Amino acid sequence: MIAIVKAAELFTRREEEAVSPKQERAVQEILSRVKREGDTAVRELTARLDGVELAQFQVKESEIDAAVATISPGAKEALALAARRIRSYHERQKSNSWIEAEEDGTVLGQLVRPLARVGLYVPGGRAAYPSTVLMTAIPASVAGTEEVVMVTPPGPDGEVPAITLAAAREAGVTRVFKMGGAQAVAALAYGTESIPQVDKIVGPGNIYVALAKRMVYGQVDIDAIAGPSEIVVIADENADPVYIAADLLSQAEHDPMASAVLLTPSASLAEGVTNELQRQCEALPRAEIAAASLLNHGALCITRDLAEAIELANRLAPEHLELMVEDPWLWVGQIKNAGALFLGPWSPEAVGDYLAGPNHVLPTNGTARFFSALSVDDFSKKTSLISYSQRALLRDGPGVITLAEAEGLQGHAASIRARIEKEE
Amino acid sequence: MIAIVKAAELFTRREEEAVSPKQERAVQEILSRVKREGDTAVRELTARLDGVELAQFQVKESEIDAAVATISPGAKEALALAARRIRSYHERQKSNSWIEAEEDGTVLGQLVRPLARVGLYVPGGRAAYPSTVLMTAIPASVAGTEEVVMVTPPGPDGEVPAITLAAAREAGVTRVFKMGGAQAVAALAYGTESIPQVDKIVGPGNIYVALAKRMVYGQVDIDAIAGPSEIVVIADENADPVYIAADLLSQAEHDPMASAVLLTPSASLAEGVTNELQRQCEALPRAEIAAASLLNHGALCITRDLAEAIELANRLAPEHLELMVEDPWLWVGQIKNAGALFLGPWSPEAVGDYLAGPNHVLPTNGTARFFSALSVDDFSKKTSLISYSQRALLRDGPGVITLAEAEGLQGHAASIRARIEKEE
Repeated sequence: MIAIVKAAELFTRREEEAVSPKQERAVQEILSRVKREGDTAVRELTARLDGVELAQFQVKESEIDAAVATISPGAKEALALAARRIRSYHERQKSNSWIEAEEDGTVLGQLVRPLARVGLYVPGGRAAYPSTVLMTAIPASVAGTEEVVMVTPPGPDGEVPAITLAAAREAGVTRVFKMGGAQAVAALAYGTESIPQVDKIVGPGNIYVALAKRMVYGQVDIDAIAGPSEIVVIADENADPVYIAADLLSQAEHDPMASAVLLTPSASLAEGVTNELQRQCEALPRAEIAAASLLNHGALCITRDLAEAIELANRLAPEHLELMVEDPWLWVGQIKNAGALFLGPWSPEAVGDYLAGPNHVLPTNGTARFFSALSVDDFSKKTSLISYSQRALLRDGPGVITLAEAEGLQGHAASIRARIEKEE
Repeated sequence: MIAIVKAAELFTRREEEAVSPKQERAVQEILSRVKREGDTAVRELTARLDGVELAQFQVKESEIDAAVATISPGAKEALALAARRIRSYHERQKSNSWIEAEEDGTVLGQLVRPLARVGLYVPGGRAAYPSTVLMTAIPASVAGTEEVVMVTPPGPDGEVPAITLAAAREAGVTRVFKMGGAQAVAALAYGTESIPQVDKIVGPGNIYVALAKRMVYGQVDIDAIAGPSEIVVIADENADPVYIAADLLSQAEHDPMASAVLLTPSASLAEGVTNELQRQCEALPRAEIAAASLLNHGALCITRDLAEAIELANRLAPEHLELMVEDPWLWVGQIKNAGALFLGPWSPEAVGDYLAGPNHVLPTNGTARFFSALSVDDFSKKTSLISYSQRALLRDGPGVITLAEAEGLQGHAASIRARIEKEE
């Protein structure tokens, strides 16, 4: 069910879901209809695509109250714990505005301010993703964003799952709208009668959502388009095959395109993990998905030593990287590329997916080489501040003139000269 | 030459340069040729598109030495001053890695590391842009990026302007390659025999460069695609029309698509600025470009008061915003959206373009609502750290299981249960 491969075979990049011209045209059409017709278009598209007739999109506060009341105490507690830990981690990410005041009267600085209004896309339909709500809404709320608007497709009954609404309440979402697909992205990007235009849209979705986000980019900001998800586990001979197999399966059960890879210098560990994968996979409700993922995108690779395992992991630049080795902190400095790093046997990926604190929206498919987890920064913008004094301008002006003239921009030079000449 | 307009007329979004399907196909073709054939393709494309036959692309250290020796002392000094100030400003932007160690043994954190290798695109051909070199290379160097590779199209003589090479030396660029257009972007994104694959490509270019960057996005990271550039000046009745006109012209001379807007409650100031624009524009070598920009995208708008001017500026979200008013610091808290803010009469935009310190690569065309200036962050990536203790996992595990089960992900729950059960 999983292949033992050589190092070189690890580097076949998974192709992203192919987009057909027909899908592109369909999304383009939805975007322009919603831009032109607003709510009317969203209402018709929701009836046609989600099979639900909605009189109004916004979920009322009283509906959220009612939903929260149906949640079990255990679930309520788990949401609160997760929200608390996620909030506490993201509070550490906040940047302050700063200034530097120089003796000559010059003041330079950087203002850091929250985006005013953001839109969260939370997948729905038949499943509920409360963790996506927490992981996208809390960084926005910590950044200070005043309006955090959430859209999620209604289920066949026209409702949003109670636990999704409870998560929205817990995370400080300001308004929830029942809409999904490209039409929801369009509504957030352009605004309609009932939904306000936002500055940024974040959150995962299907191919139509991803296409729509890509097309409205520039009109609003978006987060990185998520590709198939992956885990790499680096383990030494003393690691527990039971834990490793369980963690690989927790990745593989997401999606047949997900990838789970073990890198270890120990052939006997690899064998133990293979056996455990077989045993544990059978017990999973999503065994079929997990097995397809392991078969097509899973791999066990026996490395010369741990150093080679680290080197391979750096080249793979995985979304999740577990270090199941003795003294994992010894190796942290050698890990160059990973979205999130899990150290030791008590840090399974699942704890990071739900409630350790760090964000679970992570760079996928090798992009950890240059992308990072969703963070408070993603909901902040910066403005540079320049307040020159007369003295400083007279001193630095000649340098500006020299450089502007070197670039053939005499108007730039003239704007400095106008000030210098006036003073002479 | 510039229209006095009503507030509502300010909000016509300038269209981006239209892309023809023919241009798209041409760029696609260039990308796949360079990916397949490497240097051979780049060499042929450089001969065909830049009209230059090159034996090798990399500019030798001795050529850079020779170029630096030809630079006037004044230019050398101006470059050094600009580099020093830009470096000093960007040093303030650096983020540290951090950890939070909890009493139960849990350690959470965030590693901040530089991108390993970045590519700078510097326009060339008939003009030189040393300021682009400084503004893109220095943040990378401050972030700690080890390899800062620069590409720039050779001039008709096959050379790169001496001042561009001097700027590269000053800014810590590690290698300079003579190549431009989509072929240079492809070489950076895929790597060839002579040019290494990078993690991110930044810097402005023509429509072919912009298209190529968009197409390789995901394979590597890119910076935001720059649109037409703009300035908004907010001024009160005591502001100097000579300075304001000079600053508007310094923007307008860039490009017929550039936009220069004055917002003022004072009709007499607006009249003074109109007269000054006429007078000063005539004296500029690029008068034709500036006049076209002012005619098509320039505007003077008489507002009710300063508060309305600020409100309009926030809606415009300009790249550059000058506050030529008494006590400009009083208004800073009301400015929500601006790439860079210039305070008072001694802070013309040109000083920020070249050497005040903040970056001149700024969000354009209203995107300051959600984008920020190029910064050290753009050359850094973050890895989340999660090191749970056994005690913490046993405590938080049940919460993870509850949330995983709510999402139908039993494999996630099982990875926690495997650990809890073993301990019981």
